[in-house]
Amino acid sequence: MLSFVNDYSEGCHPRILARLAETNLQPQPGYGEDDFCLRAKDRIRALCESPAAEVCFLSGGTQTNRIALSALLRPWEGVLAAETGHIAVHEAGAIEAGGHKVLTLPAHGGKLDPAEAARALETFHADANRAHMVQPGLLYLSFPTELGTLYTKAELRALRALCDRYHMKLYLDGARLGCGLVSPDCDLTLPELAALCDAFYLGGTKQGALLGEALVFPKGAPGHFVTLVKQHGGLLAKGRLLGLQFDALLEDGLYFDLARNALERAGELRAVFREKGYRFYLESPTNQQFLILDRETQAKLAGNVAFSFWERYDATSDVVRFCTSWATTPEQIAALRALLPEQGRA
Amino acid sequence: MLSFVNDYSEGCHPRILARLAETNLQPQPGYGEDDFCLRAKDRIRALCESPAAEVCFLSGGTQTNRIALSALLRPWEGVLAAETGHIAVHEAGAIEAGGHKVLTLPAHGGKLDPAEAARALETFHADANRAHMVQPGLLYLSFPTELGTLYTKAELRALRALCDRYHMKLYLDGARLGCGLVSPDCDLTLPELAALCDAFYLGGTKQGALLGEALVFPKGAPGHFVTLVKQHGGLLAKGRLLGLQFDALLEDGLYFDLARNALERAGELRAVFREKGYRFYLESPTNQQFLILDRETQAKLAGNVAFSFWERYDATSDVVRFCTSWATTPEQIAALRALLPEQGRA
Amino acid sequence: MLSFVNDYSEGCHPRILARLAETNLQPQPGYGEDDFCLRAKDRIRALCESPAAEVCFLSGGTQTNRIALSALLRPWEGVLAAETGHIAVHEAGAIEAGGHKVLTLPAHGGKLDPAEAARALETFHADANRAHMVQPGLLYLSFPTELGTLYTKAELRALRALCDRYHMKLYLDGARLGCGLVSPDCDLTLPELAALCDAFYLGGTKQGALLGEALVFPKGAPGHFVTLVKQHGGLLAKGRLLGLQFDALLEDGLYFDLARNALERAGELRAVFREKGYRFYLESPTNQQFLILDRETQAKLAGNVAFSFWERYDATSDVVRFCTSWATTPEQIAALRALLPEQGRA
Amino acid sequence: MLSFVNDYSEGCHPRILARLAETNLQPQPGYGEDDFCLRAKDRIRALCESPAAEVCFLSGGTQTNRIALSALLRPWEGVLAAETGHIAVHEAGAIEAGGHKVLTLPAHGGKLDPAEAARALETFHADANRAHMVQPGLLYLSFPTELGTLYTKAELRALRALCDRYHMKLYLDGARLGCGLVSPDCDLTLPELAALCDAFYLGGTKQGALLGEALVFPKGAPGHFVTLVKQHGGLLAKGRLLGLQFDALLEDGLYFDLARNALERAGELRAVFREKGYRFYLESPTNQQFLILDRETQAKLAGNVAFSFWERYDATSDVVRFCTSWATTPEQIAALRALLPEQGRA
Repeated sequence: MLSFVNDYSEGCHPRILARLAETNLQPQPGYGEDDFCLRAKDRIRALCESPAAEVCFLSGGTQTNRIALSALLRPWEGVLAAETGHIAVHEAGAIEAGGHKVLTLPAHGGKLDPAEAARALETFHADANRAHMVQPGLLYLSFPTELGTLYTKAELRALRALCDRYHMKLYLDGARLGCGLVSPDCDLTLPELAALCDAFYLGGTKQGALLGEALVFPKGAPGHFVTLVKQHGGLLAKGRLLGLQFDALLEDGLYFDLARNALERAGELRAVFREKGYRFYLESPTNQQFLILDRETQAKLAGNVAFSFWERYDATSDVVRFCTSWATTPEQIAALRALLPEQGRA
Repeated sequence: MLSFVNDYSEGCHPRILARLAETNLQPQPGYGEDDFCLRAKDRIRALCESPAAEVCFLSGGTQTNRIALSALLRPWEGVLAAETGHIAVHEAGAIEAGGHKVLTLPAHGGKLDPAEAARALETFHADANRAHMVQPGLLYLSFPTELGTLYTKAELRALRALCDRYHMKLYLDGARLGCGLVSPDCDLTLPELAALCDAFYLGGTKQGALLGEALVFPKGAPGHFVTLVKQHGGLLAKGRLLGLQFDALLEDGLYFDLARNALERAGELRAVFREKGYRFYLESPTNQQFLILDRETQAKLAGNVAFSFWERYDATSDVVRFCTSWATTPEQIAALRALLPEQGRA
Repeated sequence: MLSFVNDYSEGCHPRILARLAETNLQPQPGYGEDDFCLRAKDRIRALCESPAAEVCFLSGGTQTNRIALSALLRPWEGVLAAETGHIAVHEAGAIEAGGHKVLTLPAHGGKLDPAEAARALETFHADANRAHMVQPGLLYLSFPTELGTLYTKAELRALRALCDRYHMKLYLDGARLGCGLVSPDCDLTLPELAALCDAFYLGGTKQGALLGEALVFPKGAPGHFVTLVKQHGGLLAKGRLLGLQFDALLEDGLYFDLARNALERAGELRAVFREKGYRFYLESPTNQQFLILDRETQAKLAGNVAFSFWERYDATSDVVRFCTSWATTPEQIAALRALLPEQGRA
Repeated sequence: MLSFVNDYSEGCHPRILARLAETNLQPQPGYGEDDFCLRAKDRIRALCESPAAEVCFLSGGTQTNRIALSALLRPWEGVLAAETGHIAVHEAGAIEAGGHKVLTLPAHGGKLDPAEAARALETFHADANRAHMVQPGLLYLSFPTELGTLYTKAELRALRALCDRYHMKLYLDGARLGCGLVSPDCDLTLPELAALCDAFYLGGTKQGALLGEALVFPKGAPGHFVTLVKQHGGLLAKGRLLGLQFDALLEDGLYFDLARNALERAGELRAVFREKGYRFYLESPTNQQFLILDRETQAKLAGNVAFSFWERYDATSDVVRFCTSWATTPEQIAALRALLPEQGRA
């Protein structure tokens, strides 16, 4: 069975396993005070060109979003996000369970429109009843978005300016940040991105690690952040496991090489689908590809190729997702090509 | 200055003040165990024809919604509501602060469409990722809605059937319940309404009381509800103040007479606006009337007539609200008629 | 039946009822923007000699404690309190429901010992594991305490100094503040008290109002405080009801006169108990008096005199509370004297 | 440097690393639906002789406690625990951040006394004000306790009976459960323990895993538990990492063999300390050993032997902890013996 279901089906890059084996019996301090964490943090500060950055390694994306937003929001504040944002849909109400409302705006290919966001904020701040409403205190963006798309530097700058005007924080969910940064469509560098954000995370789980996300506060973390992480159940006794992985992935640019592999395979995937006459739901420049697939074709593929259902499209078709990853091989793409039936032209 | 700003600008019906004076020095147990509360609860059970109903008197609508939903929802559940629902917009994130997401659906004149709600629930329960999403555990309705409109009996039954199918509770926000029930457009009785709901409240603050809402659980309250009320800061030491008011208002049907006054005045208000050529934003059969008013006319009225801004309508006009209440007099309507400029026909 | 059960058994001082009647039909803005609230706030600023103070009127003590602490604490912080503190025992977990731990210290007649508090804070800040522990961010005191006792000026200053040293806020629960301030044992003035606190409240419910507490932030309130009050369900539409009462009570010093009545009656009560040979649980200089009463005597009084059980003392006796209030009359004390059996000497 | 600082200083048992390498490129479903999780769950059900048990793999102890208690407690309930319980001291207020109070009782060598617990519950349920107090809804025990001690079967049964009488859940924190179960002082089997609890966890992090705890609900989990785990940020995309480790550890009884190693080394450690005249703070039959060490001796050991400070004992001495683990070798104990100065007799 060929699998394009997601980018977290396999274990991790072998370099990580080798490092785990090499260092296994070294005694290290707990709770993220170990040598690997310290070294990985230094690497991240250097890559971000943010010497004052504070970094915290966490286990997964929802945990990271929940803890970061708990630290950055005050009790009367909510978070502004696209209606397709991960925190708005697929985190089981984690942000609300932490006490904060997710205020949604329409999504365009997964992205917020800066002009729409500006109008919404202007309307809010002009509303005579705003003291009875949740105050937007933070803007949540995903990069790439849940639909694989990317904000341009100009868009991010416009959104940053909005945050400045309305005293909001800017937070970026980088579960697949590597895939975003190495995309040919990306006009931003990591240091530029770090300079625009109050906080963001460099995803590990979906970029070749066993687990782990590196939460970065480029201008310094909120006070007592470790205590907050502990309170949320996010502090690993063997924090070394997280530090070691980021240390291994960020050495020699492996992290970005793995993202490049995912994107090269995604490019081949797109070429195969185009060649065979398939219809794209939208143009995605990263490793998640969305297609409109009729149910007859889906039935033909069942048993040979795994992919994921995204949403119903119409009476006969669904939007489906094909995902490549650090582990996808050219052979898998070739095998998919062999299996894919040609689509007729309408 | 004539005021149609809201239905809570004055104090309370004089009968309440008289009762306060008469009973002032009677020692009574605290925390809602007093004679007035007990008697008012009996009256409500009788009016609802719900002998097993449990009733709790609270101070205001947001408090009532927050506490009731805390008791009725489990941690992984959210509440389904119209996007214009009070809990979704004007309660400062009270439901989220209590840990629960408000899942919104489009509003039509402030109302949910039962067919749309059915489709949304069907889609949710068919979603393969629903374990990562907030489970709708309760349906929140306002009656009348925030725009003064009313659900029909058929609509409420359809929504109740949806709740049964998907194991959801049905909760009804009755901040202006009296105004809803006495409306000629209302085809429901209070016992019918009580039989359809898991919980609802009979509003006092906007129906002639100084403060107070009567939260009713027709089939019995969740266990330890008083403790939850205390925890949320909703338990008044002198609970007698709430019980006494409902006891006074529910005697001889005064509560409904006051609502009838608000609706009769609203009928006169509509007639005046129609006579003068004003445009209604929607048809409201209760005490809140919404008009589209150009800014020039608004400027002419300023200083003589107070009403409230609802939202921007277009470049030259706004939606505004005129509200009548238990305290509005025919003389005030006549005075408004004298002040209102005729509107030209387009 | 003579009642000394508590200080909230009656309604309110007649002046309040008179003002309610006089102003009943005056239209006023909602949500605490009315003339009465504005005037009462001015009175409080003047009485506290704190021209920058911000004041918010709330409905009850638990609500006030919960909202104030939500605004003053950050998510990783807890509140330090005596083990007998109201928030630690009788608020149904309101502070924890808001996400914060109550860290308790031993109580001595209801009071914290400043030296013990200093040692506890020193120990906490020297603990190598403190990042895994709740940080004390605020000190909660009751004045008078739940056992009727009072901190001296020197004790309050010592506790303020501790707060300064450890970057903690100082909050004072003044449910019966009037009774504390007019006690002959009190060596503090209201302006002195205001100058020492980050926030405190001037209780109304137990000092002659129908309901209401005046929360005071002498140096200014946290931002967006009204939104937080709304979120917690504490914002009354007819906020006038709270403002009017404080305006009435604070005019001509009535608030303090009522407290003086409670204390004079408590003095008479103490004299009666002493004369009859009763044993005091502790010396209380305010309106709550605690006695050790054997169950035989309790049985004799049952049906004629109501008081409240406090806690079990030993196999034959309980600690009980007799409470006087603004409404207690010399005649009631005389009637009690007539009913009390003499106690034999051991 | 010899380290006895804790039992999570090293990586993991080599069998885990081998399994990670062998299975690394097998595609597996995410979020705990993988083959390894399924197999490990079967092993746990078999070991517990609880065929209806539901098992959930989580990342760490605080996370497990927080999520389990969120699922098991209702909003008005709190958790009863020893004052030294991990949730009461070293989880940064995680339980309170989830909205629930930790009600503490005195600890005796880290253990609750069943008779004291019975009296406390009797007092609570006899308290006329209990509706204003947090209801104890769950009893939290650690096994072994934070001080290494163990409840007997008779004690656990007495506590279970209390839970039954007062409608409370029984939850057991098994961060070091293996070390408890293999102790010669333990008179309980795992199936007996499972039968007594509503939930407990089988710790991995401190028993030879990289990370992971297996939360077991012997009679079935609360509904929608996965959604709650997701909401708390505890659901790993690559849940395989947790399942694989428990699968590896529970095969052939390795989990218990590793615990036995820790206890054998602890036995040797105790013998060395006794031989050299050291004073024990208490008798611990598991892998954590607590000694009273004067600061002079501590200074002599510094630089050669690492252990952890527990608490101040008196002017000249501290309580310190020496911990053995799955990775401790007889050579390390011998090396310690060589380094330890003899203690003089008083």
